[in-house]
Amino acid sequence: MPHSPEEKKRVLARVRRIQGQAEALARALEGGADCGPVLQQIAAIRGAVNGLMSEVMEAHIRETFGQPAGDEAQREARVAEMTGLVRSYLK
Amino acid sequence: MPHSPEEKKRVLARVRRIQGQAEALARALEGGADCGPVLQQIAAIRGAVNGLMSEVMEAHIRETFGQPAGDEAQREARVAEMTGLVRSYLK
Amino acid sequence: MPHSPEEKKRVLARVRRIQGQAEALARALEGGADCGPVLQQIAAIRGAVNGLMSEVMEAHIRETFGQPAGDEAQREARVAEMTGLVRSYLK
Amino acid sequence: MPHSPEEKKRVLARVRRIQGQAEALARALEGGADCGPVLQQIAAIRGAVNGLMSEVMEAHIRETFGQPAGDEAQREARVAEMTGLVRSYLK
Repeated sequence: MPHSPEEKKRVLARVRRIQGQAEALARALEGGADCGPVLQQIAAIRGAVNGLMSEVMEAHIRETFGQPAGDEAQREARVAEMTGLVRSYLK
Repeated sequence: MPHSPEEKKRVLARVRRIQGQAEALARALEGGADCGPVLQQIAAIRGAVNGLMSEVMEAHIRETFGQPAGDEAQREARVAEMTGLVRSYLK
Repeated sequence: MPHSPEEKKRVLARVRRIQGQAEALARALEGGADCGPVLQQIAAIRGAVNGLMSEVMEAHIRETFGQPAGDEAQREARVAEMTGLVRSYLK
Repeated sequence: MPHSPEEKKRVLARVRRIQGQAEALARALEGGADCGPVLQQIAAIRGAVNGLMSEVMEAHIRETFGQPAGDEAQREARVAEMTGLVRSYLK
């Protein structure tokens, strides 16, 4: 998950970008960079992680609700799973 | 929104609690409280606001996806609305 | 805390604004507002609470480090208090 | 920055851990992991990035305020720099 090849590719590209940002941060720290720029880099990584979380959540919504539920029980199970995810990660 | 009377009541109770927390904070500030406890009160309000946002989002998911869509266009519109909300507020 | 009258006034004004935003939100919920605008109002409150926390923290930094420490022990105690606050609330 | 060898080592260890978490996430995504565990991994990375930011900020406070300022102007400059950092990153 996410299942569609384009979504998977997009999510993986975000993870790779975060890895690149972390690598650049490690080099900056090793090079003795000042605190201001270092915090700026960390804030950028934080933003990228939030963007990644949103992308995965959006993909999951599309997959979960993009097709009609087979029956009422399945619909309820889908809704319960999604509200649980929102409760856990919307903070 | 949220439409069900119990959910509306629950969400309103959360807002009222936040108002009470803000009122207590105002009194603490007027009384010259120390920084530590003041920050603790603010952090508690922040947590309560996040809990409120999650509750509203969960109620919206239940309302949006709790009934089958009338047709494919409606299903797509629902999914698009929900992914847009997640993108805007999951951070 | 904050001790200076202008800072106290500024911080209190922020708390009053948050109370006003919460009151407007309660009215919107009672009036049956749509989920989108409601989430927007909650996000605005979240931003205001973060701004309040920052303002209080900044005031505390000014008060703590605006005057020279009496001795090494006091300087260390100040630094320890401030790093503890950052660790607790920077998230 | 951070200047002390132990702090630099500790901060770098946090960055390396985040890189490891991102690598594990990439592998999970490539392996088709479910959405729930993927979101859990992303939330753990988010927590680690917040911890890193706090650690860097704390180190900076220790360095900035661990020694007496040479004069009033330097003291004010230090305070102004620190309040600016808090305003930028406490959110």
